Amino acid sequence: MPTIDLNCDMGEGYGAWAMGDDRAMLDIVTSANIACGFHAGDPTIMADTAALAGEKGVRIGAHPGFEDRSGFGRRIIRGMSATEAERLVAYQIGALQACAALSGQRVTHVKPHGALYNMAAVEPELAGAIARAVRAVDPSLLLVVPPLSAMDRAGDAAGLRVVREAFADRTYEDDGTLTPRSLAGSVIHDPGIAAARVVRMVLDGAVESRHGTRLPIVADTVCVHGDTPSAVAMAAAVRTALEAAGIMVRAPV
Amino acid sequence: MPTIDLNCDMGEGYGAWAMGDDRAMLDIVTSANIACGFHAGDPTIMADTAALAGEKGVRIGAHPGFEDRSGFGRRIIRGMSATEAERLVAYQIGALQACAALSGQRVTHVKPHGALYNMAAVEPELAGAIARAVRAVDPSLLLVVPPLSAMDRAGDAAGLRVVREAFADRTYEDDGTLTPRSLAGSVIHDPGIAAARVVRMVLDGAVESRHGTRLPIVADTVCVHGDTPSAVAMAAAVRTALEAAGIMVRAPV
Amino acid sequence: MPTIDLNCDMGEGYGAWAMGDDRAMLDIVTSANIACGFHAGDPTIMADTAALAGEKGVRIGAHPGFEDRSGFGRRIIRGMSATEAERLVAYQIGALQACAALSGQRVTHVKPHGALYNMAAVEPELAGAIARAVRAVDPSLLLVVPPLSAMDRAGDAAGLRVVREAFADRTYEDDGTLTPRSLAGSVIHDPGIAAARVVRMVLDGAVESRHGTRLPIVADTVCVHGDTPSAVAMAAAVRTALEAAGIMVRAPV
Amino acid sequence: MPTIDLNCDMGEGYGAWAMGDDRAMLDIVTSANIACGFHAGDPTIMADTAALAGEKGVRIGAHPGFEDRSGFGRRIIRGMSATEAERLVAYQIGALQACAALSGQRVTHVKPHGALYNMAAVEPELAGAIARAVRAVDPSLLLVVPPLSAMDRAGDAAGLRVVREAFADRTYEDDGTLTPRSLAGSVIHDPGIAAARVVRMVLDGAVESRHGTRLPIVADTVCVHGDTPSAVAMAAAVRTALEAAGIMVRAPV
Repeated sequence: MPTIDLNCDMGEGYGAWAMGDDRAMLDIVTSANIACGFHAGDPTIMADTAALAGEKGVRIGAHPGFEDRSGFGRRIIRGMSATEAERLVAYQIGALQACAALSGQRVTHVKPHGALYNMAAVEPELAGAIARAVRAVDPSLLLVVPPLSAMDRAGDAAGLRVVREAFADRTYEDDGTLTPRSLAGSVIHDPGIAAARVVRMVLDGAVESRHGTRLPIVADTVCVHGDTPSAVAMAAAVRTALEAAGIMVRAPV
Repeated sequence: MPTIDLNCDMGEGYGAWAMGDDRAMLDIVTSANIACGFHAGDPTIMADTAALAGEKGVRIGAHPGFEDRSGFGRRIIRGMSATEAERLVAYQIGALQACAALSGQRVTHVKPHGALYNMAAVEPELAGAIARAVRAVDPSLLLVVPPLSAMDRAGDAAGLRVVREAFADRTYEDDGTLTPRSLAGSVIHDPGIAAARVVRMVLDGAVESRHGTRLPIVADTVCVHGDTPSAVAMAAAVRTALEAAGIMVRAPV
Repeated sequence: MPTIDLNCDMGEGYGAWAMGDDRAMLDIVTSANIACGFHAGDPTIMADTAALAGEKGVRIGAHPGFEDRSGFGRRIIRGMSATEAERLVAYQIGALQACAALSGQRVTHVKPHGALYNMAAVEPELAGAIARAVRAVDPSLLLVVPPLSAMDRAGDAAGLRVVREAFADRTYEDDGTLTPRSLAGSVIHDPGIAAARVVRMVLDGAVESRHGTRLPIVADTVCVHGDTPSAVAMAAAVRTALEAAGIMVRAPV
Repeated sequence: MPTIDLNCDMGEGYGAWAMGDDRAMLDIVTSANIACGFHAGDPTIMADTAALAGEKGVRIGAHPGFEDRSGFGRRIIRGMSATEAERLVAYQIGALQACAALSGQRVTHVKPHGALYNMAAVEPELAGAIARAVRAVDPSLLLVVPPLSAMDRAGDAAGLRVVREAFADRTYEDDGTLTPRSLAGSVIHDPGIAAARVVRMVLDGAVESRHGTRLPIVADTVCVHGDTPSAVAMAAAVRTALEAAGIMVRAPV
């Protein structure tokens, strides 16, 4: 039976500020990537989100980002050495491990956030730093990566188990990269279209590019976003379509 | 043979800013309390300090504080619930564990910093929150506490091993509390006097109060400060006097 | 014709995080207290909110708070000197003045936020520090204060024009202080009741305490809150009731 | 009589952390660029530094940087819009104006810091944003710029008076740009050599490049650094050499 993991970034509030409907998303996804206090999240949100994920049987992942709350971790920051990046990531993983431990939960995966994810996808030095941090903290942690990226290779090289990620609501260019968000049509808003694409990714190992080209894609997990008003409906549509197509939705085993 | 631990707060720089001569202090003390990024410290300083402590055979402790960089964790903050405090502490311990893991080191103790330490000394609810955080993250962690304080009792009640702390360079009131820093004479600047007091604490289990009263004191560890210009000379004098008196300086076993 | 100012705290988002419906509130109130980046707000939110307030003819005020984003400025912080508090407040006023200047707007009043407001209401030293900061930056700035508070007196003593504030949705104790939020019934949720109380404050100079006692109250401005789901409805009801009672709603002239 | 301004970045401590010997530098330089709380500095340091500069007759400038304390404003940050940058700069200028007002001082110039300065030197959009911020806050503020840079042109275009800056302790490439700090020899450590170069810049309007080429240079101000151990000696040597050569050291009039 074909299987796929559904993951969502969450715990992205901060102090008095909320973001997304984590409780609803946790009924849909199988892996939760929890912000670790640098681009979003704080100890209380991290502990609450981890506890709730644990209750619902959803896997808990660290979602480390640049130290950039005002930019939500989406700004490119240059001038950190690889060693500094390694420590930045290790710190955040450890912090979440401890917050999860408060409710007896364990962190099982790591997925970098925003600009850190995008930069590490194409920069081998940064990707290597992230992989080293993960391995040093806990070599059994899975590393979520864009397929065929520098992070994919760095995870492999570090002996980590990598989880290759596709996106439910994003289009791809002919070369397999995501269409930049700045281009019209880069984000798919129709839940039915997104769901059908995800089903095809799993069953056919392929997705159509923005220009109609068939692209092979190997995805172990599919990201659904949680921070938009229609996020829950989109995620639910994806899950329903997957199950209707006979695909088992579950975290990597 | 009588023994005592010498501990020092360190890793209290931040980014481009330095504080104290950690390298010199690590040749003198047996336990290092490393700031965890909330009142001071950052991932790079934490990882470097832990690695250096490990190299020199000095025990590594987490030194969590309030989220208060501009006040260096010395400001009293009211309005956090016990649950929030528990998470604040857990987060910081976990962060240091991960930064220490980068060089293969382990965290073995926890000592709250500044206002958090002073408040938890007398507030059972806060003390209990700290003890719960420590136990949840790693029940084998030692908790450094003021003797006979609320934190001492909370650590015991949580089943933690507590390490009772005295101060080399601070005077005591007749009731056994530290003389407030705001009073003249609260801080001892003469290394010889401080050293002699520490020796007496260990050998006689007593210290003279500011008013000359003999106070019984049970200390497992003595804190020497690292953030003043004369810190290294003071700490060296204390260590030399202890060893000259036949006292073994070593971390709790 | 009796007049009253309606004020609302706003610009209390931060980066990617939103709070309240400022645009709707700006159609109702006559004075906007804009967060200045320490407990909430950032340069972009400040500039946008000031520009929008200016467009709508709403007066712009600085709403300085403690440096406490994770606690939204609601936590009591002790250990800042009066001089430090003075500078904290001056900094934030100046920052808002400049952000307002980007759209040609001027700041006309200052209202401290959260714990800073509550503490300065009863602590003369802190109140004096705030008043000195306001006077040094611009002596024509109005200072919004709780009537008969330490801040009221400090403003007067500093030669500032003070604006005495009542609350639409809070109950009062027999001694004229606000019922603590921790007590049931401290917040009025019924727009009609709140509106009627505000009308009575303006026309009769009185309000009923929680226990039914008639309290004299002198209010130049009434605060309506903007950060709850029902905030807009509450504020609109207050404004409608005021106008129906023949009261002119306008900023202090 | 030829004249030149000597400027120095200062107020670059933060909370409990110090940096540089501002008091000594203020006896040497004629313009002080004061950090504004985003990359360094805080309200208390800003107010103290401005007051001290005022006492000593040194001109006070805002030294705004990216919001990047842990990187000291030296990291490149991409992903802020020009509008966001404009507000970032305005906020910081206003904050310093208010802190300076506490001691009756006025801000007379603006010099961006670190990565913001370097990026604005070559990016017209960012340079324009900075110039707009300065003009909106106070069009009489001088803007300190690298000669012939995008910031130079943006300041001119905005109708600001620009102050062209050279560096006492940095070498130049043949194209007139600063030798990157990453190259050996980019920083001049010998006070005598630095001083002689500055004298030549003022009297001959030229400096020798790293490769010996004569470069024309028009400098209204020369930057001496304050954050290294030998900073004071270097700055004093430059000032002494200038005066010995019959050059008047004074702020722009």
